[in-house]
Amino acid sequence: MAQIYNFSAGPAVLPVSVVHQVQSELVSYKNSGMSIMEISHRSSLYTDMEAEAEENLRKLMRIPAEYDVLFLQGGGTLQFAMVPLNLAKGNNQVGYIDSGHWAQRAIEEAQLVPKIKTDVVASAASTNYTTLPEVPKLKKQYDYIHLTLNNTIEGTMYRKLPENLKHQLLVGDMSSNIMAQRYNVEDFGLIYAGAQKNIGPAGMTVVIVKHELLDDKLELPAMLSYVKQAAKHSALNTPPVFAIYVAGLVFKWLLEQGGVEEMQKRNEKKAELLYNYLDSSSLFNAPVTKDARSLTNIPFVTGNAELDQRFIADAQESGLVNLKGHRSVGGMRASLYNAFPFEGVQKLIEFMERFEQSVGGNR
Amino acid sequence: MAQIYNFSAGPAVLPVSVVHQVQSELVSYKNSGMSIMEISHRSSLYTDMEAEAEENLRKLMRIPAEYDVLFLQGGGTLQFAMVPLNLAKGNNQVGYIDSGHWAQRAIEEAQLVPKIKTDVVASAASTNYTTLPEVPKLKKQYDYIHLTLNNTIEGTMYRKLPENLKHQLLVGDMSSNIMAQRYNVEDFGLIYAGAQKNIGPAGMTVVIVKHELLDDKLELPAMLSYVKQAAKHSALNTPPVFAIYVAGLVFKWLLEQGGVEEMQKRNEKKAELLYNYLDSSSLFNAPVTKDARSLTNIPFVTGNAELDQRFIADAQESGLVNLKGHRSVGGMRASLYNAFPFEGVQKLIEFMERFEQSVGGNR
Repeated sequence: MAQIYNFSAGPAVLPVSVVHQVQSELVSYKNSGMSIMEISHRSSLYTDMEAEAEENLRKLMRIPAEYDVLFLQGGGTLQFAMVPLNLAKGNNQVGYIDSGHWAQRAIEEAQLVPKIKTDVVASAASTNYTTLPEVPKLKKQYDYIHLTLNNTIEGTMYRKLPENLKHQLLVGDMSSNIMAQRYNVEDFGLIYAGAQKNIGPAGMTVVIVKHELLDDKLELPAMLSYVKQAAKHSALNTPPVFAIYVAGLVFKWLLEQGGVEEMQKRNEKKAELLYNYLDSSSLFNAPVTKDARSLTNIPFVTGNAELDQRFIADAQESGLVNLKGHRSVGGMRASLYNAFPFEGVQKLIEFMERFEQSVGGNR
Repeated sequence: MAQIYNFSAGPAVLPVSVVHQVQSELVSYKNSGMSIMEISHRSSLYTDMEAEAEENLRKLMRIPAEYDVLFLQGGGTLQFAMVPLNLAKGNNQVGYIDSGHWAQRAIEEAQLVPKIKTDVVASAASTNYTTLPEVPKLKKQYDYIHLTLNNTIEGTMYRKLPENLKHQLLVGDMSSNIMAQRYNVEDFGLIYAGAQKNIGPAGMTVVIVKHELLDDKLELPAMLSYVKQAAKHSALNTPPVFAIYVAGLVFKWLLEQGGVEEMQKRNEKKAELLYNYLDSSSLFNAPVTKDARSLTNIPFVTGNAELDQRFIADAQESGLVNLKGHRSVGGMRASLYNAFPFEGVQKLIEFMERFEQSVGGNR
C-alpha cells in the first residue's frame, strides 16, 4: 500500500525503525526463544531492559538523581487523581491553571479526591483557550500548582514557564509534549506523561518525581502510591512490559537522533512550516495566538464545518490520516510529534494548497 | 536456537500462532499503513477490534448480557483496591477468604481503603496453604466475599465453589485460571483477572461485573470507578490498545481450539501427567493435598534447597525455563496455562526422570 502520514493526536506515529525492530525481534527477544510479551518481569531480560530505558530517559531529559522515574499504568487520567492523593499535604490547598480541556479534567478528578480544596488560579476561558492563561502573582502558598504544559486539543503550549509560578511547587502534565522541547526538570516537583503521544504505545505513563516529596507514612493502596511504586522500581506488580520495551526503543532512537535539542529543532521547523502556510492561506486559519502556539498539536479550520469535513475525508483518501480535530472543538488538527517526519508536513501543505485552489480560495 | 518451554507464572507463554500473527501484521494493521501501536482509539480500526474481543470473551465464558465487560489497567493489584472502593456499601463489611499470598494482598489493599471493615472468614494458614480453607457457615451478610479461585504461588485451586458461600455476593480473582476450566459467571457478582497469565501480555485487566451492582452516584476518580469505565466502554481515556489486541487474538485462538471445555480437558491431561509423576517420584514431591490442586500452577520440591537450585539451573540450560518457584515459597513451579503445550510437560518429566537418576533417586 501507499505511504501514509499519521497525524493522530495519540496513540500516534512511532519511529519507523522502532516499529521494524519490534517486528523483527517479536518472536524471540534477545535470542531467548521467548517473545518480549512472554518474559517474566522478575527475569534479568526484563530488569536489564527496564534499567536501560530509565537510564536513557534520564539522559534525554537530564533528570537529576534525586528524582524517581516511574513507569506506571492508567494514563494521564489516573495521574489527575494520584497527584492530589500523594502530594496534597498540610492545608490540602492545591492550585490549577485552567488552560484547556485536559487541565479541566485534571481539576475535576482532583475534586473527586476527598478533602482536597482546588483553586483555579488562572484560566483562558475568556479567549476560548486560544491563548495561555495570564497567571497572576499568587498570594497563597499551595501544596502544588498543576500546569498542563501542552494543551493537546486547543493547540497551546508553554514554551517558557509563567514568571509568577516561581517559588511554587510545580506539577507538570507533559503528556503531549514531553521531549518535544527542552524543559528543566528541576523546575518541577513532579512531571507526568501518558506514553501514547510522544513516547510509545498506549498503556504506560511516565512519572518523574522529586523523591523528597514522597511521604512513606501515607497510607494509600499500593497502585495509587508513588512511594510504594518507587520502592519497587515500578514492579510492585507486573508492569506493562511491552509498552516499557517499546518506549525504551524510542528513547534509544531519540538519543541516536541527537536527543531533545535535535527534536526541538526539527519540531520548530515542522511547526513553523505549517503555521507560516496557515497564516498566509486565504482558506485555512490557525485560531491560536502566535505567542501561545504548540509545537506538537496544530489545530486549524476553514471556518465552514462542512468544508472541514470534506477536507478531512479527502485528505484521508490521499493518505493524510487522522486530521480530524477533537470532537469538543471540531475542525482539523495536525499532531506533529517527534516521530512525525518533515516530509509529512510538506505533503500536507501541498494537499492543502490543492484543496484551497479547488474550492476557489474562498470560504 | 533450540525449542524452549516457558513455565513462567506470568507474563507467560502465548499461543505460537498468535505471536506469529502479531509479528506478521505489526507494521501495517489491517493494511492501514499503521502499526496497531499507532492507531487512534477513536478510530473504527480500534472500536471494531475491541468489540470483537469483548464478543469473543462473552462467548468463551458465557457472560450474560447483564454483566459489563471491562478492559482496564493496573493488574489485579489495582482491583484489590477498586473492588472495595466500588462494591462496599451499606455497612462496608466485606469478607475475605485467606487462601494464600495474593488473597492476603487483596486483604491488605482493602484495609487501605477508608472506612472498609474486612473480616477474614476462612484461612488455610494452619496447613501453610497446602489445602484450601474450610469455609464455615457465615452468620453475617457481607457486601461481598472475596475469593481467589487459583492461588498462583501455593498451587491450590477451587475446582468447585465452597458450598457455604452460596447466598453471598462473590467477587472472584481468576487472574491465573480464567478460562482454564469452566466456571459459571452467574455465580459471581464480579470477576477480575490480570491478563498476563492466561490471556495475553501484561498491561490489561479483565473485569466482568453485574451491571446492577454499579452505583452511578458513587463519586470516585474516573479511573477507579467501574460505572464510569462501563459508561465509556473502557475507553474513558486511551486504553491499552496493544494488550487488548493481543488478548483478542488469544480469545479467537481459544474459540478455534474448542473453547473453555477443550482447554479444561487439555489442562486436566497436562496437570494429571505431572501430578502422577510427582506422586510416584522418590525425589520430587508435590506439597498440595490432592483435592486442592491447581490445574495451572504446580509447585514441587525435592526437600533440599540446594538440589532445587541445581535442578532449576540444569533445566534452564536444557530449555525448560522459568521453573523457579515464587521467592516467598522457594522450590519449583510449573505453570501450565492454556497456551502451554502438552509436549512441554512430557519434556519436563523426561528431564526430571534423568535428573532423579543422576542424583541416585534419593534426597
